[in-house]
This record gives sequence, C-alpha cells and structure tokens, in this order.
Amino acid sequence: MKKFFNNPSDYVKDMCEGIEYAFGGQLRFADREKRVLLRASHAPKGKVGIVTAGGSGHLPVFLGYVGAGMLDGCTIGNIFASPSAQKMEETIRACDFGAGVLCLYGNYGGDRMNFEMACESVGFDGIETRQVLVRDDIFSSPQETAEKRRGVAGMVFAFKVAGAAADQMLPLASVAAAAEKALRNMRSIGVALSPCILPEVGKPSFIIADDEMEIGMGIHGEPGIQTCKILSAEETIQTLLEKINEELCLGEGDEVAVMLNGLGATPMEELLILYRSAFKWLMSRGIKPFMPHIGEFATSMEMAGASLTVMKLDEELKTYLRAPACTPFYTNVNK
Amino acid sequence: MKKFFNNPSDYVKDMCEGIEYAFGGQLRFADREKRVLLRASHAPKGKVGIVTAGGSGHLPVFLGYVGAGMLDGCTIGNIFASPSAQKMEETIRACDFGAGVLCLYGNYGGDRMNFEMACESVGFDGIETRQVLVRDDIFSSPQETAEKRRGVAGMVFAFKVAGAAADQMLPLASVAAAAEKALRNMRSIGVALSPCILPEVGKPSFIIADDEMEIGMGIHGEPGIQTCKILSAEETIQTLLEKINEELCLGEGDEVAVMLNGLGATPMEELLILYRSAFKWLMSRGIKPFMPHIGEFATSMEMAGASLTVMKLDEELKTYLRAPACTPFYTNVNK
Repeated sequence: MKKFFNNPSDYVKDMCEGIEYAFGGQLRFADREKRVLLRASHAPKGKVGIVTAGGSGHLPVFLGYVGAGMLDGCTIGNIFASPSAQKMEETIRACDFGAGVLCLYGNYGGDRMNFEMACESVGFDGIETRQVLVRDDIFSSPQETAEKRRGVAGMVFAFKVAGAAADQMLPLASVAAAAEKALRNMRSIGVALSPCILPEVGKPSFIIADDEMEIGMGIHGEPGIQTCKILSAEETIQTLLEKINEELCLGEGDEVAVMLNGLGATPMEELLILYRSAFKWLMSRGIKPFMPHIGEFATSMEMAGASLTVMKLDEELKTYLRAPACTPFYTNVNK
Repeated sequence: MKKFFNNPSDYVKDMCEGIEYAFGGQLRFADREKRVLLRASHAPKGKVGIVTAGGSGHLPVFLGYVGAGMLDGCTIGNIFASPSAQKMEETIRACDFGAGVLCLYGNYGGDRMNFEMACESVGFDGIETRQVLVRDDIFSSPQETAEKRRGVAGMVFAFKVAGAAADQMLPLASVAAAAEKALRNMRSIGVALSPCILPEVGKPSFIIADDEMEIGMGIHGEPGIQTCKILSAEETIQTLLEKINEELCLGEGDEVAVMLNGLGATPMEELLILYRSAFKWLMSRGIKPFMPHIGEFATSMEMAGASLTVMKLDEELKTYLRAPACTPFYTNVNK
C-alpha cells in the first residue's frame, strides 16, 4: 500500500491533528474528538451560518472550504463515511449567529439521514435551518430521476455562491435560493483512470483495465455508465461537454464557470491539457468561460482521473463567484 | 498509460495553450512557440527582474510561480529537459527593467550550461545578470560536495524570498544575497513510493517494490540513498528531520518555514498526517514552525511520495515570506 500514515484506524484522527497544527490561526475544532471544524474568527451577528459535512478522503472537500467567504463549519466523517448526527448538530449549533443555518451538502444517504436528525434536533431550540442538497453528478442518475443524483466537485461552486450571499447579510431563504440557483445551473461528470486505496482496506476497491477509463464514475468509486478504451484528452472533453450540454443547453453569448478538477493522481499538466480542449469547445460555440478553476478541489484519495463541472452564469452568480474568499484551500483576492 | 493527453509529442504544447487559456489575464507568452512565459502586467522600472527555467512535468514548478511577488518570467522546457539557451535569453531580455536580472534555478547540468550561455549573450548588450543555483536536496550529494546537489521544492521558498526582496526595489546584488541566504538556511529531502510515467516513454522509468520506499529520490527519479520497507508517517518524518538537522543544527527558540510537498499522487490527507509528525518533532525541541506550506509545490508527474523542506528563519526571511504574492499557483494575502 503506497501511502503515508501510521495506524490505518488513526488516519482521520492524525489528519485532523495535522489540520489543527497547520491552520491553527484560521480554524479551530469545537470538540475534543476533532470532528467539528469551525472558523477561528467570529462571524458577524445576524449572518446566516453555512455548514457542510461528509466523509474524509476528498480533500480539499469538505473541510478545506471552512473560512472567510465560504463555510462557517464542517463536520468530519471517517473515510468515505458520513459523520454522526450528533456531531452535525454540534456544528449547526456553533454556526448559528442568530439568522439560521444553511446545511449545504452532497446527496448521499448517510449524510442526508444524519442532517435530517440534526436539523430536527436543533429546531426544538428554535434554530432555523434549511437543507440544500448538491446533486451535480449527471451520470449518477438519469434526468427523470435527478433527485437521486450524487454531489461531486460542483459543491465547491455552491459553497462559494452561498458564502458570498451570506456575507451580504441576506436572510436564510435568500442564501438558500442562491445556492439552489447555482445548483440548478450546474452539471458535473467524472472520468476515472485508476482506483484509490482505503487505508483500512489496503487494496484497490475496484479494477479498471490498463487501457480503459470509466466515464461517470463517482468519487467513492461508484460505477460509471460507460467503460471504454482510454480516449484522448480532446475526445474525453468532447464526450463530457456534449453530455453536460444536453441538459444545460448552452448557446452563443452564454458565460460559464468551468471547474477542471483532479481526482488525486492526475498531474496538473494534464488538467491544463483538458482545460485547453474545454476552452476551445466552448469558445467555438460562442460560450465564454469565466474564472476557470483548475486543480484539485474534490478528490478521491489517489484516484487518477478528473471531473468537469460547468455552471451557467448570470450577473448574480458572477458577483458571488468574484467575491473575496480565504480558506486554507481556496483563496480569491479578486484577481 | 493512465494519463490524459493528445499526442505524446504535443504534451507540453497543449499544456502551454491550457496555461494561456486559463491564466490569460495574469500571464502572457512572449513568443509564438509559447516557451517564454511572462507576467501580463508591467513591472516598475528599476525593479530587479527574476527569472527561472526548467523542464516540464513539475507543476506548479516552475512556471506556476510567475506573478506578483515572485517571478517575472520563466522559460519552459520539454518534460524533464532544459529549455534552450536562446529561449532563456529571450526571457532574460524581457525581464530586464533596468536594474538587471536574477537567474534563480535548480542545479541541473543542462539548465546551468544554457543559462551560462544566455547570460553571456545578454551581457554583450549591457544587461547585468546574477545566477543563483538552488541546491537544497541534501541526499543528492554529501555535504563535502554540496555544490553538486540538485534543486527541488525548496526553490519555491527561494522564489518567494527573492521576489519580495525585488519588490522592495533592492539592487541586484542584494536580491541575489537574499536568495542565497534563503538557500544557505534551507535543506530538502524527498521520499518516493512509486515512479511516474513520461508520456513519450509510456511506462514507468524505474521500479520501486510494492512494500518499499526510496529515501532521497530526486524529482526526475534520480536514485535515492536508501531503499527500505515503507516506514510509518511518523518514522518517515523522523528519518528526514534527523538528516536535515544534521546540517541545519536547529535548536530551542529557532523558527523555521516548513514545506510538506506532495510529488503528485499523494493525497492531501497524507501530507497533513506527515505535517502532524513534523510539527510534533519540531515543537518537542522548542523549534517553532512559521507559515507552513502543505500541498503540491514541486511535483514529478504522478509520482507518489513527498518531500520535506525546512528553512531556518530570521526577521529578514520572515518579512520576505510574509510579503504578498499572487501567481496562478501561489497566493499569499497576509492571512
């Protein structure tokens, strides 16, 4: 197992201690078990709190986006596993600044069940919550059953949009509406070239043949919709963009945010090669990319592969994307 | 070959086009061949220019550090190969703002030979240059022949220090002296767990057994000094820090910059697990980490592994590290 760790069962604990040692000035844990991560600085009274939660193994998702302009708190689960409802509840309580809390997270069974319980529980104490589920992965379910789709890298755009809306001191319903608009306008697809290894398992959780790729694979190795011979970068992007555009129906004059996300082991050089093809595809149709995001935003340990997210923009969404943000893994200084 | 590209021979060309499409507002190519990358904005007259050069396959090194507060220009070579003297010359000429140019680059034969020629050539036209070679990799040669050592991830600290010194409008000799001080105070070591694949070769360039790691391996796969069974994260860091400290001789009260750099396929989670051990090792000896850098700063395609760089600080170096910088791959907003 080609990995750096101590005991497999301490993987998440040791990672969280690393987070604390590395980013102690910006972040703090609310609990002794280090599963409830908060911004070190206090949010202004009356700001909507924004929290997320999810399993570990996807850094920078989820906890890497806690910070100014994005999330107020994150509940940390074990590798690929939902954190508990109780820890989510602690996170929500810590992030209620008097205007309610938006729970913005990926559409996975465990996370949904636990957030439901946590929201019910804080509701008894009068803390208002709204849940917005990220379902950007278009290959995880057909359009007719889009409510079953999983959340992948596009959630980072949703964090950014909701964070900027909350910083404008909008009420909970408006912050939730901004996140929902971002999600309505966004689609993602992933392509995996190789599996990842969970430290407690010690071997790859599935196999992809040496000359094959899997289109539509999820960030936990959920099977894709198509296994095929490895395509060129240009063909890969064309396949993904055509699928995305069947639903987004982009046309001349549209502006889009593009995220080319590495799943773990794919060199930055190759994300740029993929971005080149995406840029050309869009520009040849009169569609203009805005603030491209290229790098590792939502990974699956050391999986080789990439995902593409496209979000159709309007002036409101552009304003939110442009707003300043500063977290350990995401900085926007209004370049 | 689990990679995204089009033709192997177009790998660097396509990557450079991706750079242009992605960062067109911040960066520009000076040449039609897209090998001379410059900041899009003009530097103030009288500022020392800072340039580097090197082979591709190490992103964000080298070109990712062109931008405000760091480099003015970078000459781009093919994968793991030095760019030509002629392209270096074009870069130096474009980055002479009237106060001379610092050529700050890794100690590799081809880069050194070509920079020598380029500097001689621009010298005929009265452009003053200084060459400072990065030699931070302590396992690449013993201390007695330290002049033979290679440059690895520590060069990013050197770019940052030199960039901040140049922004203070110091003269060439002082900017070079600041970079040299950073380099004198810094040591790095890498540990590889798996090899990388060059697109034109199509298979791993060397083999590391499934249960082994290679300590001291270079970022082009240069052999290390020790192959051993995979150590725990804690043992790995202890081995590296003890070696580094044989030369840096750190003691109670010292402050250090620490860079925990992923070589390509190592998850961020594991860099944090490694950082945890480094932090504990340092703190238990009364040595204080300052502005930790954790992530991918200098890679070797999809190699699994990490490198550790430690730089002993004084007030001058701290000031330079703290100074603002904004490049496509490095942002410091004085958090």
